[in-house]
Parts: sequence; C-alpha cells; structure tokens
Amino acid sequence: MATTESKAPAKDSRKKVGLAPNLDSGFYGQDIISVSQFTRENLEHIFGVAEEMRAIVKRVGSSDLLKGTVLACLFYEPSTRTSSSFIAAMSRLGGTVIPITQGVQFSSVSKGESLPDTVRTLESYADVIVIRHPEMGSAQTAADYAQKPIINGGDGAGEHPTQALLDLFTIKEELGQIDGLSVGMVGDLRFGRTVHSLARLLCLYDVQFNFVAPEILRLPLDVMNEIRKRNLPVTETYDVAEIVADVDVLYITRVQKERFSDLAQYEEVKDLYAITPELMEKAKEKMIVMHPLPRVGEISYAVDSDPRAAYFRQMENGMYIRMALLAAVLGKV
Amino acid sequence: MATTESKAPAKDSRKKVGLAPNLDSGFYGQDIISVSQFTRENLEHIFGVAEEMRAIVKRVGSSDLLKGTVLACLFYEPSTRTSSSFIAAMSRLGGTVIPITQGVQFSSVSKGESLPDTVRTLESYADVIVIRHPEMGSAQTAADYAQKPIINGGDGAGEHPTQALLDLFTIKEELGQIDGLSVGMVGDLRFGRTVHSLARLLCLYDVQFNFVAPEILRLPLDVMNEIRKRNLPVTETYDVAEIVADVDVLYITRVQKERFSDLAQYEEVKDLYAITPELMEKAKEKMIVMHPLPRVGEISYAVDSDPRAAYFRQMENGMYIRMALLAAVLGKV
Amino acid sequence: MATTESKAPAKDSRKKVGLAPNLDSGFYGQDIISVSQFTRENLEHIFGVAEEMRAIVKRVGSSDLLKGTVLACLFYEPSTRTSSSFIAAMSRLGGTVIPITQGVQFSSVSKGESLPDTVRTLESYADVIVIRHPEMGSAQTAADYAQKPIINGGDGAGEHPTQALLDLFTIKEELGQIDGLSVGMVGDLRFGRTVHSLARLLCLYDVQFNFVAPEILRLPLDVMNEIRKRNLPVTETYDVAEIVADVDVLYITRVQKERFSDLAQYEEVKDLYAITPELMEKAKEKMIVMHPLPRVGEISYAVDSDPRAAYFRQMENGMYIRMALLAAVLGKV
Repeated sequence: MATTESKAPAKDSRKKVGLAPNLDSGFYGQDIISVSQFTRENLEHIFGVAEEMRAIVKRVGSSDLLKGTVLACLFYEPSTRTSSSFIAAMSRLGGTVIPITQGVQFSSVSKGESLPDTVRTLESYADVIVIRHPEMGSAQTAADYAQKPIINGGDGAGEHPTQALLDLFTIKEELGQIDGLSVGMVGDLRFGRTVHSLARLLCLYDVQFNFVAPEILRLPLDVMNEIRKRNLPVTETYDVAEIVADVDVLYITRVQKERFSDLAQYEEVKDLYAITPELMEKAKEKMIVMHPLPRVGEISYAVDSDPRAAYFRQMENGMYIRMALLAAVLGKV
Repeated sequence: MATTESKAPAKDSRKKVGLAPNLDSGFYGQDIISVSQFTRENLEHIFGVAEEMRAIVKRVGSSDLLKGTVLACLFYEPSTRTSSSFIAAMSRLGGTVIPITQGVQFSSVSKGESLPDTVRTLESYADVIVIRHPEMGSAQTAADYAQKPIINGGDGAGEHPTQALLDLFTIKEELGQIDGLSVGMVGDLRFGRTVHSLARLLCLYDVQFNFVAPEILRLPLDVMNEIRKRNLPVTETYDVAEIVADVDVLYITRVQKERFSDLAQYEEVKDLYAITPELMEKAKEKMIVMHPLPRVGEISYAVDSDPRAAYFRQMENGMYIRMALLAAVLGKV
Repeated sequence: MATTESKAPAKDSRKKVGLAPNLDSGFYGQDIISVSQFTRENLEHIFGVAEEMRAIVKRVGSSDLLKGTVLACLFYEPSTRTSSSFIAAMSRLGGTVIPITQGVQFSSVSKGESLPDTVRTLESYADVIVIRHPEMGSAQTAADYAQKPIINGGDGAGEHPTQALLDLFTIKEELGQIDGLSVGMVGDLRFGRTVHSLARLLCLYDVQFNFVAPEILRLPLDVMNEIRKRNLPVTETYDVAEIVADVDVLYITRVQKERFSDLAQYEEVKDLYAITPELMEKAKEKMIVMHPLPRVGEISYAVDSDPRAAYFRQMENGMYIRMALLAAVLGKV
C-alpha cells in the first residue's frame, strides 16, 4: 500500500479563518513557526497588542474578542507551562480550547496516524492549532498541510517562537527599550533552544551580547555567525561573576549534570553559573534576571524577593503574548 | 459485603434535562445508544439540524444554544478524534465540557468503582454524558442507571452510533440523496464496527451493497442477514478494482496485518484493498471516497487532492452531527 | 548551586483577586486549607450561598458571576470526582478552567520543579488554584507562596476541607438542622480523612457521635480529644447493627482488606460494617446514609433506591459547595 506522503497541497499563504479580519497587521491567517518571521515592525505590533491584553486582564479579567473560536492544543509531549498559558490566553479572550495535552496518551498517534492527518482532522473542529512535538521541523510540516493557522509551541531541538517573543517582550516592558542594552546569557548555551531564539530576535536590535557557559556548552556556531553578521559586540567567559556588574539583562538557563561525561568536571564548574544574593549585590540597581523556567537550583530561592528577579513577571507576560498572537492570526488585531 | 448490582431503577423513558424543551423531535431526554433507534424520519430531523449547525459555524463560529449546560466526556479509553469532536461541538454551542479523556488514568475506576456509580456521580455535575468504553453493552448499562441522557461514543465491539450518523450524513451532503446509490465497503468488514453500523443505517434506504474483503475478513452473518431481510442487492468480491467503476460511495477501512496468522497471505492480498490515484482513474466522476480515519496507508496520500476524497469533510461533518445530537437530547431542537 | 527554599514572602493575608469585592463575608482573597478555618457563622454564609447556587443551576443551569476568571486545577494525583466537581462548578459560574488533572504526567514536576515555583507560575495565568497533592501540608506550602487564593483539594493524610463542607451541608439540607443530631460514623475511622474532617466540623454543633470500627481502625486520639474537649457524647462499638436504630446520620467509609495483616480477621469482621436493606429496616424512617464515594461493596446496591440513601445527592451538593467557595474567595458573595 502507498505510504509515502504527497506534497502538501498548494494553498494561499493567507489562511482563511474569519470574517472582516484585520488585514493590516500582516498576521491574519499566518502560521507562527519561527522567530525568523518577525521584524521590528511586527514585533512592535504584537507587543502593543500584548500591552492592551494585560490592561484588559488587569481591569476586567477577559474579553469576548475570540468568542466563538476554538483552539486545539495538540501536545505530543506534555508541557504544563506552555499549554496552561495558551489555555488561559484563549479563555481570557472568550474562546474555547480542545486540550490534547497529555502527550503520551495520544490515541490516534498510537494507532500510527501521520502528523498531517492528525492536523487536518483537528482543523476540521478548530480555528487555530498550537502544536508541541519532539521532532524539529514538525510544526512546519503541520503548517504545510493545514488550512488554518498553526502556532509552533516547541518542536524539539528546533524553535519555540512564543517563548522568544515573551522573553523579548519582558525585556522591553521591564527596561523600557531594547536598543543599547547589554544582555548576558548564562548556562547551557549549546542546547538551550530559548537562548538561540532570543539571541536571533535580539539581532534585530542594537545590543551587546555576553555569553557565559562551560566550554562544552558554548553557543553554537550558526547562532554566533548570525550575531557576527550584524556586527554586534560579543564577549564570552566561563564565569557569570565577570559580567554581572555590566549587564542590563541576565538570562539564566540550567547547566544539566547529564551533559558532562566527567562528573568531577561538572562539580568543578557548576557554581560559576549559579545566581545567589551575593552575586546580585554586584549587579546594577536597574537590571533584570530572567529564566524560562522550570529552574532546579540555578537561581537561589533567596533571589526571588529581589525586585530585579523578573522570571515570574516573565511567565505572566507569556499569557499576554499568546493572547496577542491568537488574536492576530485570527484577524482580530 | 454485598457486591451484586441491583437492577437499574425504573425511570421515565424521557429523561428530564431542561425547561421548555422541544418535545416534537422525539430526542429530548433520550439516550443515543444504537443505530437501531433511528428511523428515516428522525435521521432527516438530525441531518436538517446538522446543516443548520454548519451554517452557524461557517457564519459566526458558534451559538449560545447550550449556554449553561455541561457535557461530561467520560472516556475509559482515549479516542482523540471522538473526544475532540464532542468538545468542539459542545463549545460551539456555548456549553462547557468536563474532559475525562485519558482513559488509563481514570482514578475512581482504578479504585474499583462500578460504571453505574461513576455515571451517577458525573450526572450530578453534568447535563449529558458521552461515554467511551472498551466493553460491549457498557453504554446501555450507563443509560439504564443515569437520569440524564447518555450518548454512546463507542462501546468496544458494540456500536459507535455518532460515527454511523456522520458517515450517512456525509453521503447525503456529498451526493444529495441516499436512495438509489451503489455503496462499496472495503477492507476489514468482519471487525470493522463502523462498517456494521453504517450498513445497518443504509438498510433504511434503497441502496446496493458491494462488499470487498479478504476471505477471513468478510461481513459477519448477522449484518448480512439484516440486509437480506430488506431484499437489497448485494455483491461480494476480493478486489476493489472490480467494483470501483460502479460505486457512488467507496467506504474504506484498514486491513490489519495482525488479523492474518500467515503473513505471506497478508502480503499477497493487501494491494487489493489499497486506494491509489491509478485506481481512482477508473472511478466515476461523481463519487466519494470515505474513511473513518485514522488511516495507515490504505489510502494513498496522493488521493487527498482528488475532489472525490471526502474523508476530511467527513471528519468535519462529525462535529455538526454531534452538535445536532447534543442540542436534540437537551431538548433545544 | 543553592537549592534551599527561601521563606515564603510576607504578604497581605487578604489576597487581591478582583475589583469591588464583597469584603463582608470574610472569604475574599482567603485560602481554603483546613476545616479549622470555619466557624458556625461563616459555614452558614457558605451554606446559604450554596443553596442559591443550587437554585441557579436548577433554574437556568449557570450564571455569569465568575465570567472572566480562570481556575487552575492542579492535581498531582488524579481524582476524577473532585476535579470534575470543581470544573463543573467553575463552568456553571461562567468561569473557565486550566485542567491539569492527570497527576502522573505533570511535566514541570517531572523536570524537578518545586511546588512553590509551579504555583507561582500558574497564578500568573489563573485567578484561583485548586491543588491536590499526595503530601500532607502541601496545600499550606502552596498558599504560603501564592498571591492568589489556594483551595486545598486534598493533601494526602492531611485535609480535604471541601469534602467536609459538602458532607456537613448535606446533613443540613437533608435533615434541616445539625444541632441535636446523633451521627454514626462507620468503617475505617483511623485512616479515613473525610471522617476526621467532618468530625471536627461537627464539633461546632451539639451532636452525639457514634463510632463503629474494627479495633485496629478506631478513631485516632487527636480527633477523639477534640470531641472530648467539647464534652459531646460519644459511643464506640464494633457492629453497626448496634447503633443503626438510633442515629440520624450514618456516614460510611470502606474497611480495606489491606489494613489487616491477618486476612482471617478481616473476613471475620467485614460484615459488621456492611449496609444492606435488612440493616436499613432497623433504621429510623427519617435518617440518611452518606458515603464520600467511591464505594466498593460496603453499601449494597439494593440500598440505592431507599429514599434515605443520600450519597448521590451528597455528590451533587459538592458542586454547589464548590461554586459557593469559588465565588466567595473571588469576592463575589
């Protein structure tokens, strides 16, 4: 029997998902797959909408902007943070959610169904689909086949664009601007997907990069080359203490023990990437500490009460960014 | 201690689920357990409502018809397609859903609770219950004990009436009528629950049946006898190529390798049940290919772009049929 | 790296969760962690609201009281009954739910995230959190860190206050009053969390306690001492038949085989705690049988049709109590 997939059907680059849409923003009917889709202009648009979303939530809790629309959350691997954030975002816009968020127990898939078939089935019920999948490129495959907008909720070693957007939005909200900032990125810069995506977005602005990682977890060449192409200033060190006094943003990720073949080596370096109250004493008065969470010890709990600890506000921003993106691809903003 | 279940309590055949209901349709307060409940008249009613539901969804996305009502999706085994379809259907009618859709992790059951107790608990929270259960007869058991309407979402080797309804609705929508059609059913006709239920519904109409299956997967005697009782014309063959030019409907199901004790035998026959572009060249210009999905190779992906490939429209129809049934048993249509 | 948790941040005992709240009830912005928080006065308030909730559900199905608010159901262990009841309660008040109800598959936790971090993340999306966790004290830990109200949905061997409230509400609704009643509690009184919590709440009233349990499952000393402090009359026996004629309430829990090291001992006593139609013949005409469910044989199914069997009405009351509590902590009643 034939098992090869045909090419994705040719389709209008603008997917049809509603009446009287806002065509000006450029987001209506579009997929959100990669940070490379974004320009300073459309980031400004999304950030502006996200600020409005925050105002709505703070003032009245929710709006009816997406009343009558349905989001399918298709998570092939569980991610409580991302799925909860999208569910809350859709709910606070008056829409509803089909929550397929348990990953392992995904029945059609266990029966051997292909991703394109699953997506085409779900889009017959829903108006927009968020997909989380362990394989790089899967979100693009879904988008190739779908007639409704696909939002990439993380595709393995690939991208997680809504995370990068909420990270950048947090920097802008906390510090007022992005141009001119000195940004420190700390920890596992090699495998840290969020670091790569945020670094790429920051290349749209005039920033200075300060990378802090163990030798085996340094930033990959492709991301570094993108930065070089933009001629942005870069420093690299092994110890966060060397940069803490100079940066406006300290973006932390976890250095996992499992990355080290020699455990003694891990024990030797791990303290160089830990954020403690003592370290924070050397930091600027106006700067922020960020983390994509979950954390497992890399930021001391004692730092939480420091007003510069922005990671929980960063989480909250995730909901506003996702509200903005959902409203945008459905043509409402 | 006493563990024998008592008889289900005697109850009004019309369950009470709302005020000022539509009593004319005959569906208000009824359970949907088997295709044998349906007549041409009440199928017409449901199909008419389903068409209205499609119009509402296409025009404005949703209605408030079931605002204030709650559906419990009680899935003892996961079925993403069926549960997603019901969740979307309820959402698009303004109602809400208790999604118990993971099957395995059903806690009360793992504590040994009986099906009647679980159903009676859930109906104290919800207005209507969809139940999916691996055991034949379980949906009827649930209905015997419940005071609120039960919809059978598949009971093992038993029935899956909403699937049969959406299949029949698709034939009517695609081809304009059912009487006079020649229907081919292909693949695993022995264990294919959807084939049995659809064949039974088609016995209400004047159709010709063309069954195509390997010897070991031929249609069971009980279904065949129902067709004979109606004196409807029947053909049986081993090769779909023999009927493809004559049929108006080609309903495909999967021939599973596991059914064959002799694998060589499977390899020998499998191509006789595969739908390819070459095969489709011999089919009528106006006919449809259907499949309950998921498929695993039995329909070539290259067929998807053929306008006669109706299986994704068939999925979408599932949502409209389920909207119609939910509204009907809750007395709104 | 630092892994010790800091102290919970000092915070206003009244959490901020909305505009123009009802401050009079004393529930606005409060956590619901333990039955020890309740007085006769605030129980009366909640019970009055629960009665109104029932009237709303019976009359129109739902209200818009909590429109625009989001509940996070954070279940570290599955509990279909409790989570379904909270989901239905929130839905029938016009709010929405983030359903994290599968326990085992909780992804952030499997990545090693601490409970405080998980709670602080979820409260950035939601307005109120219900938490179910296998460890005693976990709900209080969550409340210590959260800025939004936490409702304890069961913390292991600790408390399950909403269950105790629905139990007490059921007694009041069924029998019209609580003072003056004779209450029998039967079965596993040692490990039965619901028994302990209900007994503590009943200490606010003038009741007589009748405890019936095998020797190894007798009521623990701490609960018994609370009762003694109130000078309430208490009897203890091994056989439910000895008290059945005298009590107004018979609250049954399961005697688990696993509690007995000597199985012969279990077989010897198990019939002393079984509720059968024969036993019910000796009971008062106006009394009720209660059970937190699920049951596994300790109440004969033949008792279900007895009008004194209140356990399914008790389930339904759980939804009204949870509606009342959600509305109360969100400042609406």
